[in-house]
Amino acid sequence: MKLVTFEVSTLLGPFLRIGALSHDKIIDLNMGYICYLREERNHPLAYELAGVILPPDMLAFLRVGDAGKEAAQTTMQYVAEKMSKAHVLGPRGERVLYEMSEVRLKAPVPRPNSLRDHISFEQHAGASEARQLPPAWYEIPVCYKGNPDSVIGPEDTILWPSFTDLLDYELEYGIYIGREGRNISQDEAEKYIAGYTIFNDVSARDIQMKEMSVGLGPAKGKDTCNVMGPCLVTPDEIDCRNMKMVARINGEVWTDGNSGTMFRTWAQIIEYASRDETLYPGDFLGSGTVGGGCGAEHGKWIKPGDVIELEVEGIGILRNRVGEKEAS
Amino acid sequence: MKLVTFEVSTLLGPFLRIGALSHDKIIDLNMGYICYLREERNHPLAYELAGVILPPDMLAFLRVGDAGKEAAQTTMQYVAEKMSKAHVLGPRGERVLYEMSEVRLKAPVPRPNSLRDHISFEQHAGASEARQLPPAWYEIPVCYKGNPDSVIGPEDTILWPSFTDLLDYELEYGIYIGREGRNISQDEAEKYIAGYTIFNDVSARDIQMKEMSVGLGPAKGKDTCNVMGPCLVTPDEIDCRNMKMVARINGEVWTDGNSGTMFRTWAQIIEYASRDETLYPGDFLGSGTVGGGCGAEHGKWIKPGDVIELEVEGIGILRNRVGEKEAS
Repeated sequence: MKLVTFEVSTLLGPFLRIGALSHDKIIDLNMGYICYLREERNHPLAYELAGVILPPDMLAFLRVGDAGKEAAQTTMQYVAEKMSKAHVLGPRGERVLYEMSEVRLKAPVPRPNSLRDHISFEQHAGASEARQLPPAWYEIPVCYKGNPDSVIGPEDTILWPSFTDLLDYELEYGIYIGREGRNISQDEAEKYIAGYTIFNDVSARDIQMKEMSVGLGPAKGKDTCNVMGPCLVTPDEIDCRNMKMVARINGEVWTDGNSGTMFRTWAQIIEYASRDETLYPGDFLGSGTVGGGCGAEHGKWIKPGDVIELEVEGIGILRNRVGEKEAS
Repeated sequence: MKLVTFEVSTLLGPFLRIGALSHDKIIDLNMGYICYLREERNHPLAYELAGVILPPDMLAFLRVGDAGKEAAQTTMQYVAEKMSKAHVLGPRGERVLYEMSEVRLKAPVPRPNSLRDHISFEQHAGASEARQLPPAWYEIPVCYKGNPDSVIGPEDTILWPSFTDLLDYELEYGIYIGREGRNISQDEAEKYIAGYTIFNDVSARDIQMKEMSVGLGPAKGKDTCNVMGPCLVTPDEIDCRNMKMVARINGEVWTDGNSGTMFRTWAQIIEYASRDETLYPGDFLGSGTVGGGCGAEHGKWIKPGDVIELEVEGIGILRNRVGEKEAS
C-alpha cells in the first residue's frame, strides 16, 4: 500500500485524513472502513469502531499495528469492488474517494514521534581515496537527532533560514517504526518497519560546520526544515536494497544514486537503535544522504525559487520549491 | 510554585496527577480547582472546566499557559485557607491533599515534547590553560538533542546499558518552555520559561566518544536514561544565576559547582533556539554539565548500586540508585 496523509478543505476548516493511493485516486481509509462495517457487517458502532481500528490520523493508525493494517487492506478491497458497481459514499453522504487535485498532501506522519538520521552512505560520509572515515563509522550506526516539529510535506515551501547563505538539499529516504520494541534482534527487525518515505534533510551548511566543530549535533544547521513524503510505502511493495535515487534541481539531474550503496541494513540499524532503548510507532529513522546526494558534494548550491525534485524508485517524487530567505 | 507530577495507586490502577508542594504535602491541583469552582463559584461544570484550565497532566497544563498558572495559584490559596478550617475533599469524596510518602513522584514532565542539551559551562566543555575551545563554542549555543522517551524521575533506578563499561552522571539543570514561540528576542525570552528542574544526563562515555569521533550526536551514549526532577520550580521562586550545584555519590561530594558559571543566559539560548524554528510548551532545554559536574572530570566512576544525589539550590534533590548492568 501507498499511504498518505491529506488535507480536506471544508466549511468548518481543514481536516487531516489518511488515505491509500489507488489508480491516481485517494481512498479515505477511515471513511471506507466505516462503509464496510456498516454495509457488509451491519455493525451498529461503525464510526466508533473505525475510530479505534482505522483512525484518520497516521500516528494513531501506526499505533494500532497489524489490526489497523489488515483493516486498511480490507477497506481497499471493499472500495475497489464497490466502485465497479456504484458510487461510494459514507452512511451520511461522506466522500470516500478523492481526486489528487482536490486535496493537499501532507507529510505521511505530520509530526513523527522522533527523528533520528543515520549517516549510512560511505561516499557522503566523506570516504575517498584520500580520506579514511573514523573507525567508529564502520563499527556503529552513528546518528544525530532532528526536529520532528519542523517536518513539512510535498509541495510545501522549503524555508530558507535568515542565518544561512549556504542552504543545501540532502537526498535520503527513511523508515517509520510500526510497533513498539526494545532490544530487537536483526532477525525480527523488519517486522518493526511500517514503511518507507523520501526525506530531504535540508541543511544550512555554514551553521552545521560550526556546530560540528564543537563536536555536538548538528542541530540548528538541520532543524528548521525536514521534508518528508509523498507517501508511506509498505515494505511488501518495495525492495529497499535497490532503488534508484535521483535529485533534479529545476529539472537538471544533480544526484543519480542507488539505495543499494547503503553500508548497512535497516535490520542492523534497528537492532542498534533499540538496544536498551525503546522504539515507538511513528519514530522516523533516516538513511543519511546517498552518495552524491547533496549540492555541496558537487560544488553546486541551490537558491531561492529553485524547484527540488527528489525521486526514489518505488516511493515517488518529493517536490518542493525553495523559499526566499527569511527576514532576520 | 514547586509543581510535581505524581502517581496515585488505586484499585483501578495507577493514575498520574499534577500537584503543588505545600509544607511537605502535595495539593492535587486539578482536584483542588474543582473544589474551588464548585464551592466558591457554584460552577455547574466544575469537572469539565478544570479539565480544560487545570488538567491533571503537566504537558497539557503547560499548554494552557497563563490561565493555567493563575488557576493553580488560586487553587493553592483556596486549599490553604480551607485547610485551616476543615478537611478538604472533592465533591465526590476525592482526595485533595497527599503526604509525600503516599505517592510516587515522576519526572515533572514525564515525556517532554523535545530535549535539547546545551553545553554551556566552559569548564565541562574542556577549556583549560592547555586547551582552547573551538571559536564556534563562544559564538553560538551548540546543542545536541536527546531522547524524550527515555526520561525517568526521582528515585527511579538508573539504567546501566549492556553496551557500556563507563557510565557517568552529569549534573545539569534545565528549563521547560511554557508557551509557543518563534524568533523570540532576548528581551521577551524569560516569559517563555515555565520553570526549572534538575537534570542528570546519564552518559555512556565509551560509546559517546565513538559517536563524537564521527562528528554526530551524541545519541546512543546519552539516550538510554535521562533523569529529571524532583519538581518544576517557577521562575519567580529562583535566581538561576546563582544556585549551588552539588553532586554526592554515596554521600560523598564529587561536584561542588554553581549555576553562575554558565557562559550564557537562558535568554540568549532561547533567542538562538527559536530562530526560524518554533519552540513548544514542554520542550526541555538543558544547561549542559556544570564545571566538574561528572565523574570523568575527576577520574572517578560510578558503579552499580551507587546512590547519586544531585542537589540544586532552590529546586531540591534528585536522588537515584544506579542499576545493575543490563543483560546483553
